[in-house]
Amino acid sequence: MIKNELPKGFLANGIHCGIKKKRKDLALIFSETDLRVAGVFTQNKAKAAPVILDQKKLRENDIFKAVVINSGNANCMTGKKGMKDAEKMAEETARLLGTTGEKVLVSSTGIIGELMPMRPLIKGLPLLVKGLNREGLMDAAEGIMTTDRYVKISSRVFKIGGKDVTITGMVKGAGMIHPDMATMLCYIMTDADITGQALKKALHEVNNVSFNAITVDGDMSTNDTVLLMANAQVGNPVIHEKDKSFDLFKANLEQVSVDLAKMVVEDGEGATKFIKVMVTGARNDEDARKIASSIGSSVLVKCAVQGGDPNWGRIASSAGASGADMVPEKLEIKLDGVLFFSKGRAASHIDRKKSKVFKDKEVLIELNAGLGAGKAVLYSCDISKRYITLNSYYTT
Amino acid sequence: MIKNELPKGFLANGIHCGIKKKRKDLALIFSETDLRVAGVFTQNKAKAAPVILDQKKLRENDIFKAVVINSGNANCMTGKKGMKDAEKMAEETARLLGTTGEKVLVSSTGIIGELMPMRPLIKGLPLLVKGLNREGLMDAAEGIMTTDRYVKISSRVFKIGGKDVTITGMVKGAGMIHPDMATMLCYIMTDADITGQALKKALHEVNNVSFNAITVDGDMSTNDTVLLMANAQVGNPVIHEKDKSFDLFKANLEQVSVDLAKMVVEDGEGATKFIKVMVTGARNDEDARKIASSIGSSVLVKCAVQGGDPNWGRIASSAGASGADMVPEKLEIKLDGVLFFSKGRAASHIDRKKSKVFKDKEVLIELNAGLGAGKAVLYSCDISKRYITLNSYYTT
Repeated sequence: MIKNELPKGFLANGIHCGIKKKRKDLALIFSETDLRVAGVFTQNKAKAAPVILDQKKLRENDIFKAVVINSGNANCMTGKKGMKDAEKMAEETARLLGTTGEKVLVSSTGIIGELMPMRPLIKGLPLLVKGLNREGLMDAAEGIMTTDRYVKISSRVFKIGGKDVTITGMVKGAGMIHPDMATMLCYIMTDADITGQALKKALHEVNNVSFNAITVDGDMSTNDTVLLMANAQVGNPVIHEKDKSFDLFKANLEQVSVDLAKMVVEDGEGATKFIKVMVTGARNDEDARKIASSIGSSVLVKCAVQGGDPNWGRIASSAGASGADMVPEKLEIKLDGVLFFSKGRAASHIDRKKSKVFKDKEVLIELNAGLGAGKAVLYSCDISKRYITLNSYYTT
Repeated sequence: MIKNELPKGFLANGIHCGIKKKRKDLALIFSETDLRVAGVFTQNKAKAAPVILDQKKLRENDIFKAVVINSGNANCMTGKKGMKDAEKMAEETARLLGTTGEKVLVSSTGIIGELMPMRPLIKGLPLLVKGLNREGLMDAAEGIMTTDRYVKISSRVFKIGGKDVTITGMVKGAGMIHPDMATMLCYIMTDADITGQALKKALHEVNNVSFNAITVDGDMSTNDTVLLMANAQVGNPVIHEKDKSFDLFKANLEQVSVDLAKMVVEDGEGATKFIKVMVTGARNDEDARKIASSIGSSVLVKCAVQGGDPNWGRIASSAGASGADMVPEKLEIKLDGVLFFSKGRAASHIDRKKSKVFKDKEVLIELNAGLGAGKAVLYSCDISKRYITLNSYYTT
């Protein structure tokens, strides 16, 4: 059962305040009761001010009330002034919400290296707070978009201890998406009662098979953030790490996260095709991830998919360049289910079938390394001329 | 003094035999006297048959006579038949040259995964051998081209012990070029007398600052080969590793190699601009290489250069994602000599000057990490819509 609405006790809103020219550029998520929050952030060494600030707050505090997000400016490489701006953004929002600055988290996305336009932002906050409402999810999801072509929301409802628990997430992506987190902001809300430890564990485990398993262009952003927020509003028996209910919670969180991650890839800048890379038979899971990442990130493979060209040789070459253990004679490569290479040679029936490969909007690349039990899945997209156009004239 | 001709005692030729539809597809380099040869090869685990064969020959033999090269088919992922084909290519060439198979090296470049069309190849060899001549360098350089737009040759002449020594190289590149070697075939000939050890040392050291310092699209090919061949024809005092003449030889080899490496980048598939990335102040040279490689390989940075957009934020972000040590507050970034970021903030005079940046055919990205003495240089190129077009329909 899917419904695109906020879990109990959550309010949201999104408005245009003037950081961007026309589109919404400011969003707010608020819980009527206290929030437990777990977060994962970019590994980039050039972390944006709000990322540094949120990581500090999550180390120091247990309880939160809200997260305020702007698009259009990343507040990154902005020095001490940038950090003060991020703090002020949190404090001013907190004041309007009747709480304190340390209970408000902050995210930013957009251009790097320019100071945040604080005047329109601060001026917009009262309207943003005033407009908080139970139906505000769509507005908030619009407020965090940059080059995204559409709003990305996913939701699941399931029972724990007889209570309907909801997990609802929104994400923005497009461009610079890569494992280890990239310009992606994701906010997942739940009304479940769950311990802080269990919340962290669920987020980290699910993150590895969803947001860290996608790639758009191999770049890793400075602002990536995934927050998982729980407000205990449905009164379920509290979920601990070793409970059966934890597995159920995690399974539903994974569904929501994989939904959102796939939407990010499908909406990759200029993407026209969705690529699923499945690697099996690698020496171990780490090797499988290396191979999948090398294939899914290869610009040449992306071009081949774009052109509907079943160029399996490039896939073998990408796998060989991944650094993982590989023996060409043991490789098996299937494209859209059609065997192209096995037992050290190209499959003989390729010509008959290859016209059908890489022609659909979703394509499947399967590689069995024939060496062990390691496996990994990666979601990627093709690269088109529109990607070049979109990224050639971004700041000027 | 530059002249584009073969060193003493070398003959060459290039012809069309029918592997490709129209353009030349077969090349031969031959020395009238015995050759010492040093080689470096791709690190890709999916090595092509001729690469495996040449590596074996270089381990087992000291003396060679020739190298035969085809374009249009990479003889890669072709199993046992592919290895037999590569051996036959060497043996048949050797027979026609009046020597033995182990003295002939083999290279291939082109499509991966299809068996070598041996019939036209074998049929073409007598013509190829018969046409060997002192003026055949240009024909040979044409014979190794794939998507290259022009022939790439460089040469230096210098004196050792009163004798004119010549170093002349030819290379093919375009597409899939990346540090650690990529679809690049390079043959460098010299008439100097130099020991096998000194030859190896010179090649390895020069390779690191030339062919391993270039990137076109981040993919690493299955067939990359650089061979350095010396036939001792000018009668100079033999060059040993610790001689002064070794430094002179190496300096000239470096000039030829950097020339050729830069030509490969300039002719990158669909490239319109040449990018030089200079990293200084990194914690160490290894970190500097990581940062330079991350910037030079970033599709987003390439797009920015393509669009003439001085998007220094993407450069900082790429550096931050490289895995190398980085502190944003210590970074200094200059684009085409104009300071864009230092002391933790964007330079204030950017707007006045930025219109002049990234507008020329050659652009310079300078990053000082402010942490140590590590430095590296990388040559790269932009990415254009033509790259996508070229790579979307390669096999079909």
